[in-house]
Amino acid sequence: MKELLEANDRLAGDNRAYFASRHVLAVNLMGSPGSGKTTLISAIAKELGGIPVGVVEGDIASSIDAENLEKQGIRSSQINTCGECHLDSRVIRDGADQVDLKNGILFIENVGNLICPAEFDLGENVRLLAASVPEGDDKPYKYVPMFSYADAVVLTKCDLKEAVGFDSGRFEKGLRAVSQAPVFEVGLKSGRQPQGVKTVADYLRKKYDALKKA
Amino acid sequence: MKELLEANDRLAGDNRAYFASRHVLAVNLMGSPGSGKTTLISAIAKELGGIPVGVVEGDIASSIDAENLEKQGIRSSQINTCGECHLDSRVIRDGADQVDLKNGILFIENVGNLICPAEFDLGENVRLLAASVPEGDDKPYKYVPMFSYADAVVLTKCDLKEAVGFDSGRFEKGLRAVSQAPVFEVGLKSGRQPQGVKTVADYLRKKYDALKKA
Repeated sequence: MKELLEANDRLAGDNRAYFASRHVLAVNLMGSPGSGKTTLISAIAKELGGIPVGVVEGDIASSIDAENLEKQGIRSSQINTCGECHLDSRVIRDGADQVDLKNGILFIENVGNLICPAEFDLGENVRLLAASVPEGDDKPYKYVPMFSYADAVVLTKCDLKEAVGFDSGRFEKGLRAVSQAPVFEVGLKSGRQPQGVKTVADYLRKKYDALKKA
Repeated sequence: MKELLEANDRLAGDNRAYFASRHVLAVNLMGSPGSGKTTLISAIAKELGGIPVGVVEGDIASSIDAENLEKQGIRSSQINTCGECHLDSRVIRDGADQVDLKNGILFIENVGNLICPAEFDLGENVRLLAASVPEGDDKPYKYVPMFSYADAVVLTKCDLKEAVGFDSGRFEKGLRAVSQAPVFEVGLKSGRQPQGVKTVADYLRKKYDALKKA
C-alpha cells in the first residue's frame, strides 16, 4: 500500500506540471454516492461565464454522468475504474488527454466514496467536497480524513434541511474541529439557494485567475 | 491485495463457524454514508419481539452510533477502523466477542461505503444493503458490485421520493439487471411506510428460525 501511494504521488507531480503547462485549474470533486456531484458541476459551469470547462468522470461502472454532461455541451471523458474505489493519478492523465482542455477549469469527478479518495493526490489545485444534507449532520465527526482533506465544502440539497432534521450548528461544529474550509450552501432541485452556486463559481474563478497570473 | 482477500476469506470461515456454534444469525448491513443504517437497526430491533439483538458498529472514527444504540438498550461494540474503508473478518471476531451474543441476531454495521465492503466476506449469514432515496435512482447502474452482492435491499427515506424526484421504475430496472434480491421500502422520519420495517424484521426472523432448526 505504501509503495502504491508513493507511485501515485510521483505521478500526481507529473499531472500538476501538465495542468500548469496548459493553464488548467484542476478541481478534484469528491463526495458520497448521490451527494450531487454531477449536478453541481453543470450548475457551476453555467456560472463560470466564458471560462472553458472540462470534466473527467470517474465511476466504477456506467457512463451515465459523462453522457449527461456531454448533452449539456460540457466536454467530458469517462473513466471506469472497474471496481476500484477511487481515482488515481495514472488514470487522470488518460482522462485529461481525452478532454484536451487548455486555459480553463477541469473538474475531476471522483468515485462516490467518502473515504478512499482522500488518500490519493491527483495533482489537482483544489479539493472540493460535496456533502449532502440527507447524509446527516454527523458526517464530519465520522469521516474525519475526508473532511480535513477538502479545501472547500459544498453542502448540497439544503432545501431538504427541514425534512430530514439537519442541524447546521452540529455540522459546523464537527467540521470546525478538523478544518477551516469555507462552506457553500446550495439547493438545486427546488431553486432555493441558487446563489450558493454563484459563490462556488466565484471561489473557483479567483483560483483560476491567480493561476493564470502566476 | 489477493493475499489479503484470501486471508480474509479464511477468517470469514472461522467467523461463520463461531456464529453457528452460538446460534447467532449474523447480518452484514452495508450502505453509503448517511443511508440510515443505524436508524434501521434500532427500528428492526423493536420489531423482532423477543429475539435478542446485538450490534457490531464499524466506523472509521467516532463512537456516536454505538452510544446511541446503547442508550436504546441494544448491546453494541464499536470498532474504529482507523481510516480503513471496510470491515474485515479479523476485526469482526473482536467486536462479536465484546457483544457476546448467543441465540440471537447480530447486526454488523459496516463502514459507510458503497464499494469496498462488497469485497470482504465477514462470515455473515445475510448481506443487507441500505440504499437511500436521496442517493438517487441511478445507483444500481453505477455501483454494480454492491447491488449484486446484497441478499436483500432496504430502500430507506422513501418519504423523500417526491421531494427528490426518485423514479422507482428506473431503480427497479437497474437493480433487476444485476440482482433478484427482494426490496423493502421504509420511511422512518415521517412515519410513512413503517410497515416496511416489519417486513424486513419478518424476513430476518425467518432466516433466524431456519438457522435454529438446522
